Amino acid sequence: MDRRSFLKTSALGGSAAAAATLAAPAYAQGKRTLTMVTTWGRGLAGVHDAAQYCADAITASTDGQLTVDLKAAGELVGAFEVFDAVSAGQADIYHGVDYYFLGQHPALSFFSQIPFGMTFQEFNNWFHHAGGRELADELYSIFALKCFPAGNTGPQSGGWFRQEINSPEDFQGLKFRMPGQGGQVLGKLGASVQNLPGSEVYQALASGAIDGTEWIGPWADEKAGFFEITKIYYTAGFHEPGPNLNMTMNLDVYESLTPSQKAAVEQATGACNTWSMSQFMANNAAALQRLQAGGVRVLEFSDAVWDAFGAAAAEVMAEPMGDELYKKCYDSYMASLKSSAAWNGRSQAIFTAQRDRVSGL
Amino acid sequence: MDRRSFLKTSALGGSAAAAATLAAPAYAQGKRTLTMVTTWGRGLAGVHDAAQYCADAITASTDGQLTVDLKAAGELVGAFEVFDAVSAGQADIYHGVDYYFLGQHPALSFFSQIPFGMTFQEFNNWFHHAGGRELADELYSIFALKCFPAGNTGPQSGGWFRQEINSPEDFQGLKFRMPGQGGQVLGKLGASVQNLPGSEVYQALASGAIDGTEWIGPWADEKAGFFEITKIYYTAGFHEPGPNLNMTMNLDVYESLTPSQKAAVEQATGACNTWSMSQFMANNAAALQRLQAGGVRVLEFSDAVWDAFGAAAAEVMAEPMGDELYKKCYDSYMASLKSSAAWNGRSQAIFTAQRDRVSGL
Repeated sequence: MDRRSFLKTSALGGSAAAAATLAAPAYAQGKRTLTMVTTWGRGLAGVHDAAQYCADAITASTDGQLTVDLKAAGELVGAFEVFDAVSAGQADIYHGVDYYFLGQHPALSFFSQIPFGMTFQEFNNWFHHAGGRELADELYSIFALKCFPAGNTGPQSGGWFRQEINSPEDFQGLKFRMPGQGGQVLGKLGASVQNLPGSEVYQALASGAIDGTEWIGPWADEKAGFFEITKIYYTAGFHEPGPNLNMTMNLDVYESLTPSQKAAVEQATGACNTWSMSQFMANNAAALQRLQAGGVRVLEFSDAVWDAFGAAAAEVMAEPMGDELYKKCYDSYMASLKSSAAWNGRSQAIFTAQRDRVSGL
Repeated sequence: MDRRSFLKTSALGGSAAAAATLAAPAYAQGKRTLTMVTTWGRGLAGVHDAAQYCADAITASTDGQLTVDLKAAGELVGAFEVFDAVSAGQADIYHGVDYYFLGQHPALSFFSQIPFGMTFQEFNNWFHHAGGRELADELYSIFALKCFPAGNTGPQSGGWFRQEINSPEDFQGLKFRMPGQGGQVLGKLGASVQNLPGSEVYQALASGAIDGTEWIGPWADEKAGFFEITKIYYTAGFHEPGPNLNMTMNLDVYESLTPSQKAAVEQATGACNTWSMSQFMANNAAALQRLQAGGVRVLEFSDAVWDAFGAAAAEVMAEPMGDELYKKCYDSYMASLKSSAAWNGRSQAIFTAQRDRVSGL
């Protein structure tokens, strides 16, 4: 099934219009419980943890004024229904990753991940200091939402395959799970791309419904158990170098908060952002070693495969350019990325190469 | 003047013992004003901004319970007096960077910066998920302090020189401003190293009291105006790949906070951490372009110079190893760094190299 039509059919539909016609709820002053839904199955390593961090941090810092009640995917609404549910006010908050919802608006990719896009740090540079936040406010307000960066998995692995990928042609006919514009890129290379929430991926791979999958990185992938099914693992991938997880509130709910509650939300999500990214980064190396000790072969894509990814990604990124807001986000994002990458190339990239060479790391 | 003796003579002295004998203040319940002192002159680009962010964020999110009153360096105590002042309860909080205080304890370097050490992300991996926080609590409690990461400048530039550095011998006799263990490394290479707070560096360079200086990176260095004095600028440096700025509270004050106030402090500093790092990273590339347009020559150290930095850094890092807590921090830090670097080498380093190659960034 094509990812975009999948999303369009699965979406509840018309959420922006529906939200616009809702009267702002008359919230009682004082103690409130806010319901958070997520795109994550309960307990999914790292991603559920980030959602829980946000819920707990808001609850803890607002001195009993706000209690955030986390409902994992399927407990109140399904993983792919959270965007519409919060937009329509059926839940107050979601935690998730918004490339699941490109059927709602293609520009959501800039606030989750575009292929060959920004790393965690580069995204935060853009969001906090180079126009990203203002564009997010413009985009999400269309859907009566307010978005806060609230977690990141860091650079995701190319994924699990039943056979080696030695040339771009090896993607022809491959049934592969990859969401977002990354999935569209593999589609250009002839893959049959599927979008599945994390909680459904293992079963699909085990049953042969898909030939391969990407998920996150060694630590989360190990917990997901894909090594039980296949032993071929590509690490560096083109598709998600630093996907932004966000905590997104219904805009009416957000605007009903007091100034100090708004500040608490900003700070809880901000603190979660680094905490979450660090959780993945602190655990991946040891997990990769364990996977290798268990017989997993760790491979890299060749330059020719990267070139094919790059050509297809340029096509995919160009397709929605007729949408004015997408184009505006693209221009802002790419200018910031170019600037961030230029400085990285003159500083951290040189330092880490010299450090690892000199110190034998 | 030698950096360590400078620090020892400038320190107020005996702060841990003094703090231990102070009774816990009987704080009035309800609204409180906390005084924050800093190692930064008012308005110093980026670093003062991070202190102000923390002060404002705590004030905003605690709903009037806590108001943080920021006093920049010199307004209440001098830049190099903040550690002792907060340890002794003369102020409640400081924002700064703790390699200024290695005379108090050499292990403070792990929570600010060691040469050839961790980047911002690597530090956060260690602090939040690999034992760093627990060691910080052990170390800072000796001084009746509680430390929170609260900002980062990202990879610092090698600095401003009046002459090119073409071999390690060029550091012989050079009067250079560099704090922390990085400065000790240059001392091993024959430099006469000075420790000066940021607000005094320009004048020292202009007067010839020093031959050169590092400060932060292009954006902050441009604002500091060093290009008016010399046009030779080295970007990637060995000494501060990601110095942690911290917001550190008097431990009695911290323990007197309510649970929700403690959560607010944790989250305000956590949010500041990414915001601050991103501020530097978002602004450096454009500043470097402006500096170059103004005639600044941007250079890199040769491999031979990096090798000399590395050999001297290994000596410097080994010197305090007789201190048990330093050794414990060192072992924990290096194990985490090795793990973080290994994963980075298999993921982000490959991705960014491929992205920049394929996309022409």
